[in-house]
Amino acid sequence: MEFSQDAELNSALSRLVSQVKSAMTTDCCSIYIADYQKQHFLLVASDGLAKESVGRTSIGFNEGLVGLVGQREEPLNIANAQQHPHFIHAPEVKEDDLNAFLGTPIIHQRRVLGILSIQQQNARNFTETEEAFLVTLSAQLATAIANAEARGVIDQNQEQGIKHIQAIPGAPGIALGYTHVCYPRADIGNVSLRKQDDVVVELQRFSDAVKATKADFVDMASKLSHVISDNSLDIFEVYKQLLDSEHFVAEVAEHIQQNWSAESALKQVIDKYTVQFEALEDAYLRERASDIRDLGNRLLLNLQQLGNETEKLPEQFILIAEEVTASLIAEYQHHGLLAIVSLSGSNNSHAAILARAIGLPAIMGLENVPLNVLQDKKAIVDGYSGEFFLAPSDSLQREYQLLIDEETQLADKVRQVKDLPAITRDGKAVELMLNAGLSTGFEHSKSAGAVGVGLYRTEIPFMNRSCFPSELEQTQLYEQVLDAFPKKPVTMRTLDVGGDKSLPYFPIEEDNPFLGWRGIRITLDHPEIFLLQVRAMMRANAHHQNLEIMLPMISNVGEVDEANRLINQAYYELSSELGSVNGKPLTKPKVGIMIEVPAVIFQMKELASRVDFFSVGSNDLTQYLLAVDRNNARVSELYDAYHPAVLRALNAIAQESSELLVPLSLCGELASEPAGAILLLAMGYDKLSMNPHNIARVKWIIRHIEYQRAKIILSHVMTFSTAKQVHTYLNEQLEQMGLGGFVRAGM
Amino acid sequence: MEFSQDAELNSALSRLVSQVKSAMTTDCCSIYIADYQKQHFLLVASDGLAKESVGRTSIGFNEGLVGLVGQREEPLNIANAQQHPHFIHAPEVKEDDLNAFLGTPIIHQRRVLGILSIQQQNARNFTETEEAFLVTLSAQLATAIANAEARGVIDQNQEQGIKHIQAIPGAPGIALGYTHVCYPRADIGNVSLRKQDDVVVELQRFSDAVKATKADFVDMASKLSHVISDNSLDIFEVYKQLLDSEHFVAEVAEHIQQNWSAESALKQVIDKYTVQFEALEDAYLRERASDIRDLGNRLLLNLQQLGNETEKLPEQFILIAEEVTASLIAEYQHHGLLAIVSLSGSNNSHAAILARAIGLPAIMGLENVPLNVLQDKKAIVDGYSGEFFLAPSDSLQREYQLLIDEETQLADKVRQVKDLPAITRDGKAVELMLNAGLSTGFEHSKSAGAVGVGLYRTEIPFMNRSCFPSELEQTQLYEQVLDAFPKKPVTMRTLDVGGDKSLPYFPIEEDNPFLGWRGIRITLDHPEIFLLQVRAMMRANAHHQNLEIMLPMISNVGEVDEANRLINQAYYELSSELGSVNGKPLTKPKVGIMIEVPAVIFQMKELASRVDFFSVGSNDLTQYLLAVDRNNARVSELYDAYHPAVLRALNAIAQESSELLVPLSLCGELASEPAGAILLLAMGYDKLSMNPHNIARVKWIIRHIEYQRAKIILSHVMTFSTAKQVHTYLNEQLEQMGLGGFVRAGM
Repeated sequence: MEFSQDAELNSALSRLVSQVKSAMTTDCCSIYIADYQKQHFLLVASDGLAKESVGRTSIGFNEGLVGLVGQREEPLNIANAQQHPHFIHAPEVKEDDLNAFLGTPIIHQRRVLGILSIQQQNARNFTETEEAFLVTLSAQLATAIANAEARGVIDQNQEQGIKHIQAIPGAPGIALGYTHVCYPRADIGNVSLRKQDDVVVELQRFSDAVKATKADFVDMASKLSHVISDNSLDIFEVYKQLLDSEHFVAEVAEHIQQNWSAESALKQVIDKYTVQFEALEDAYLRERASDIRDLGNRLLLNLQQLGNETEKLPEQFILIAEEVTASLIAEYQHHGLLAIVSLSGSNNSHAAILARAIGLPAIMGLENVPLNVLQDKKAIVDGYSGEFFLAPSDSLQREYQLLIDEETQLADKVRQVKDLPAITRDGKAVELMLNAGLSTGFEHSKSAGAVGVGLYRTEIPFMNRSCFPSELEQTQLYEQVLDAFPKKPVTMRTLDVGGDKSLPYFPIEEDNPFLGWRGIRITLDHPEIFLLQVRAMMRANAHHQNLEIMLPMISNVGEVDEANRLINQAYYELSSELGSVNGKPLTKPKVGIMIEVPAVIFQMKELASRVDFFSVGSNDLTQYLLAVDRNNARVSELYDAYHPAVLRALNAIAQESSELLVPLSLCGELASEPAGAILLLAMGYDKLSMNPHNIARVKWIIRHIEYQRAKIILSHVMTFSTAKQVHTYLNEQLEQMGLGGFVRAGM
Repeated sequence: MEFSQDAELNSALSRLVSQVKSAMTTDCCSIYIADYQKQHFLLVASDGLAKESVGRTSIGFNEGLVGLVGQREEPLNIANAQQHPHFIHAPEVKEDDLNAFLGTPIIHQRRVLGILSIQQQNARNFTETEEAFLVTLSAQLATAIANAEARGVIDQNQEQGIKHIQAIPGAPGIALGYTHVCYPRADIGNVSLRKQDDVVVELQRFSDAVKATKADFVDMASKLSHVISDNSLDIFEVYKQLLDSEHFVAEVAEHIQQNWSAESALKQVIDKYTVQFEALEDAYLRERASDIRDLGNRLLLNLQQLGNETEKLPEQFILIAEEVTASLIAEYQHHGLLAIVSLSGSNNSHAAILARAIGLPAIMGLENVPLNVLQDKKAIVDGYSGEFFLAPSDSLQREYQLLIDEETQLADKVRQVKDLPAITRDGKAVELMLNAGLSTGFEHSKSAGAVGVGLYRTEIPFMNRSCFPSELEQTQLYEQVLDAFPKKPVTMRTLDVGGDKSLPYFPIEEDNPFLGWRGIRITLDHPEIFLLQVRAMMRANAHHQNLEIMLPMISNVGEVDEANRLINQAYYELSSELGSVNGKPLTKPKVGIMIEVPAVIFQMKELASRVDFFSVGSNDLTQYLLAVDRNNARVSELYDAYHPAVLRALNAIAQESSELLVPLSLCGELASEPAGAILLLAMGYDKLSMNPHNIARVKWIIRHIEYQRAKIILSHVMTFSTAKQVHTYLNEQLEQMGLGGFVRAGM
C-alpha cells in the first residue's frame, strides 16, 4: 500500500476496514491513528461505527479499551466490552449493541501508530486465529502508515506548521532558505513512441542535438572547474565519451533508420541502457542508471530545441528535484544555491559525491513526497542528520539560524589556525592527516593544513573504465599524489573493492557483500593485479620516497605474510630493474594494515611483528563490532561510533599498540568530529586522518583543550554503559570548555 | 563463458585467441593451461603458433618465458624474446619469426591456472594499454576456466581416474557406493503448450491427477513417518494444502476452460508460481520454487498416467538428481539409500534439511555437471566437506572405507556412553544440552542423552504459514517442548528471523541481511509480536517451570533493558490473569542473552548485571569477528572457528563470565566437534549445546580425556598464530590420546 495524499490514505483505510469486516464476518472494524501532539487516538476509518464519528471521535491515550491496547502494546480480546472496567461510553459512535472487542496495536519501530479493532454483537472471545490474523495485518499496516507519516501525509505536528521528514544525509552542512523545485523540463520517460518517415531529417536533428549537448557539457564542466579540481567532474567526461562512442550514436541512428522519430529512437536506446544498469546488484553502478537518464534528458532537451529558459530564481535557494544530478548542480552552481534535496538517490549518487566535494549540504532519498507540495516554501536542510523541515516554525528557524551563524563564525575562527601545529594547550601534539583519493586534484587539499596523507584510496582510478589501469597509468597517478606532499608521508591503501564498491569489468554478486570478497581478499586471490599496483606505487615512490603501503580488510596473519611476500617480490624485481635512482638505492616502503575486522584486535602482537604501522578504519570496525550496515535505514540507528563497546575496543587497540611500540593512526569519521578527536587524542592516537575540510576545525579543537582534561574525559566515558550517556556527557564537556558551537545533535 | 564439455572449452578458447589476435593486431595469441600433476603448461589454443603443436606442446613449470610468467605470477613484456636468457627454442611451434612477447598469468584464488600470451614479429615492447587489457582478460578468463575445472571438464588428475568436485555440504556423513541417477520422469519444463477442445475430459483428467497425487503424498509421508517424527514432513502437508486450495486448482481449471490441455494449463500455472518464488530475495523462500516444481512434476506424472515403474536399483546406492526433492528422498528411502547428491539447491533446500534430520549424507549444488556422466559409477560422497569423488582410485576408496568403518565402530562405541554423565577421567563434569527446534518431534531427541535443551529455535512454527501464529498455537507448541524435558532446563530463543531467514508474510529485503534487521532488532521494533511470544512461553511454562528465555542478536544494553521491561510486563499481566497454578504462583523464567555480536565482548560487566546467563552463538560470532559470510563460497575458507582470534575471544568471554559469576553455555558447531569440545571444556564452558546426533560422541570424548590435559592443550593453542597451526596441533593431540578416529579433515 502506498498513499501519496491524505485523502488516498483515508479511502484506502476505509476500504480496508470493510474488507476485514467482511472477511472476518464481524459487525464492525475500525482504525484509530495516534496523535502524539494531542495525546489521543483519532478514529479515521470504520465500517460499523457511526459514519459521522469518523474523523471526529477521539479517545485519550489513557482512556477506554483503545487506550489500554496502546498502553499495553499488545492485543486485547474481550467477550463483553461494555462490562470491562476501562470501557467508556461514547454515544456518538453508536456501539451499544457491540459486545465482543478485539484490538491490536499498530506498531512501527517501537512506536504505537494506531489501533486496529474489530467488534461483534455476539458476546464471545475472538478465536486465536482471528487474533493472529489481526496481529499480522497490524504489522503489515504499520509499515504503510509509517511511510505515509514520513511523507507528511499524516502530520503529527500540523498545528505547529512543521513538516519534518527524515531522509538520507548526502553531504554535511545546514541551510535555511526558500525551496526551488526543478521539474524535469525534458523527460525521456514521457516521450511516446512515434514513427516518422523522413529519416534524413531525423538523423540530422539527432546529430545536431548531440553536438549541442557536447557543447553544454564542456560549458558545465568549465563552470564548475574553478570551484573544484576534482574527478567528480569526470562524469561529464563519461557523458562526452558516451556521445563520442560510435556505438551509442549508431544505435540511435539504427532506430531512426527503422523510421522512428529521433525522440523515439533516443528513448528506446536510453531505456535499454537504463534497464541494464538498474538490474545491476552493485549500488554504485546502479546509480549510473541515473546518469544515463540525465544524458537522455539533456539530449531530448536539445532535440526539442527548448533551450534553457531563464527561470526566475530567488536570490538564495534550496534546490529540490525528483532526481538531482551532477549536471543540475553544475547548472545552478552560480545562482545562490544553498543546498540540494533529491527525492531519489542515495549517498552513492554522483550528486551526493559532488555536493560533498564542493561543501554543499545535501539530503537524498526523500521518497514519495509529491514535488508540488515542496515548491517555494521556507525550509531547513540538515545535511548532518538527513532531516528536512518544510515551513518550519519561527522557533525552529531561530534555532537553526543560530547554528548556521555559529557555523559561519566558527568557520572564520578555525580558518586562522589552519597552518598552525595541532597541539594541545599543555603541549601534546597530534598529527592531522588527509583522507584523499575521492578526487585527483590536490590543490585544495595541499593547503588544508595536513601534515601528510593518512589514507589515499586507490579505487577511483579503477572505476569508470573498461579494464584494469596499466602499471604506467597507475604510476603516473600515484606520482602526482606523492609529489603533492614531497616531504611528508603518504599512506596508500591497496585496491579495496568489493563490499559496496565494484568494478564494471570485474563484477561481484553476493548476498552479504560486507562479509564477502573484498579488499585484500580479492587482491591476494589475484596477485597479478596486486603486484602491478604495488610495483606502480614503488615506481612512483622512486623520487620522494615518502610512500607507505596500507593493506585493507586483513583478518589473519597469513594474509599479511602473503602480502609481504608479494611486496618483497615487487621490490626486488623493481630494484634490479631500476638499479639506484639519483644515486640512491630504491627504499622499501613501510607496510601497515587497516584494523577494521574485529578479529585483528585479538592478534595485535602477532601482527605487530609483521608490519610497520596500524591504522584503524573506525567506520567499518564499528559496523562489524555492532553487526550493523549503516546504509540500512532499518538499523542505521544502531550504528554509533560512541557505543561504549566501540570506544573500549578503540582504547584497547591504542593501549596494545603503544605497548607493542607500533605507530597507530585512525581514519574514519570519528577522527573528524570534535568529541571524537578529543577521545582519540586521550586514548593515544597520535595520527588522525580526515577529509580536508575538517582539518582546520579539529586543529582548532585540539589547540583549545588540555591533554590532561581529555584524559579525564576519557576515563569518565569509559565508565558509561550506553551511547546516549556518552553523547550527553561529551556535549556537556564541550559546552563547559566553550566548544559548544561544535556540538550538534547526531555529531 | 560457460563450457559443459572439454571440446566446447577448447573451441571457445580457440575462438578467443583468434579474436584477441585480431583485436590487438598482433601476429600470435596463445593460451597454456597448467597441469599440476605433470608440472607443466600445455598449449591448448593458439592462433599464430603451429596448429599441430596445440594440445601437444608443453612447457615445464620452470622452463621458458611461459614458466617465468607462472613463477612470478605477473605479466612479462619483452621486446625481443629470442634473446631473453629464459627463452627456450621449441622448433615444433614455429615461432622463429616472433620477437615481441607479452604473457600474463591466469590466476584464480591464488593458483596459476594458465598463461595467456601474445607475440609479434616486430621486436617492440607492448604498450601499457595492451598489457592492462591482457591482465583484465586473464582475470575474467580465470573464473571461466576455474569453473570448467571444478566441473571436471579440465581434469588435473585424469590419469589417476579421480574426478573431484567441490560442492556444498548438505548433511554430514560419508558414503561409498554406486551412483544411481534419477532423471525427472515427468518434467513440467518439457511440456509444450497445446490447445485441446474437449474441456470436460481435460477437467476430469486434471481432477483425477489431483486425487492420485494427494494419495501419493499420504503414502510418502507415511513411508517416512516411522523414520522421522519431524516437521520436515510438513512439506507434504503444504503440498496437500496447495492441492486442497480452491485457488490453485481453480486457476488450472480456468486455463483448461480456455481450451488448453490439462498438461498445458498445469504448466502455465506452475510456471507462474515458480517465477514468483524465484524472484524473491530470501534464500529460504526462493528454495520453495523447487517445491512448487516438484508438485507440478508429480501432478504431471499422474496426468500422463506413467505410473511409478519399478527401476532396477543396486542394493545400495548414492542417489543423484538434477534436483533432489523431499519427495524423492521419501520415495527412495527404503531401497538402500546411502547418500544424496543434488546438482542444484543449497543447504537451505528442503532435501538438505530432511537429509540432516534423518542422518543421510548429502551434497548440494554440484553445478553444471551433465547428469549422464554420473550414472552407475562408483563414487564417494563426503557430506562433511561437500566433496564428491567420481570413480575414485583404489587408494582413495580404501582411505574412505577406513573412515566409514571407523565411523561405524565409533558410533557403536559411543552409543554405549549415551546415558552416562559427561565427566572427564579426572572428574570435571560438563552438561551436554540439545539444540532443537528444527523439528517438532522430540522422541529421538529425548533419548539422545542430553540433560536439557540449550537452544530451542522458535522460527520454524512462524514459517510455512500465512500469518503469525496465535498465542494459543504457540503455547501448545512450547508446552510440548517443555513437557519433553520436565525436570530439565529448556532455553527458548525468542523469534530470530532476518539474516537468512524471513517470513512469507513479513518480507525483508536488504543488501547485507547479516548486518541488518534481524533477531531482537525486529522483535523490539514490534513489541506486540514479542509480547505474544513471551506470554505464550510463560503460559506453557506454568506446569513444569523449566523455561529459560534467551534473546538473540543483542548488541547494546538498551536492548536488554527494553526486552526485560516487556518480559516483566508479560509476566505481571499473566500472573494477574492466571493467579497461582497448582497452588504455586507463576515463577518468572530466567532471562539470558546470546553472545554473537562482537561488541558484547566489551560490555560483559554491564550485561551481567542485567541477565541470568550468557550463551555464546559461536557460528555467528565467528562470522562477525572475521567479517566472513560462510555461505559465500568465495570467502568461506576464511571462516574458521579455530582461528586464534576466535579462540581468544571465546576464552576471554569464559574468563570474564566466570569472574562475573554468570552461567555460560555455548551453542554452535564448535561444541559438537571433538577438538572444539575439549577446548571449550578447558576454557570453562560448563554447558555445551548441540544437535542430538552429536551428544553421545562428545560425551565419549569427554569421558576419555583428563581436564588437566585439556587445560594444557588450551594453553598451547593460545600461543599459535594461525588456524592451520591450531588444527595440526589438535589433530596430533587427538591421535596421541587415542581419539584419532574422530579426526577428519575439516572437522
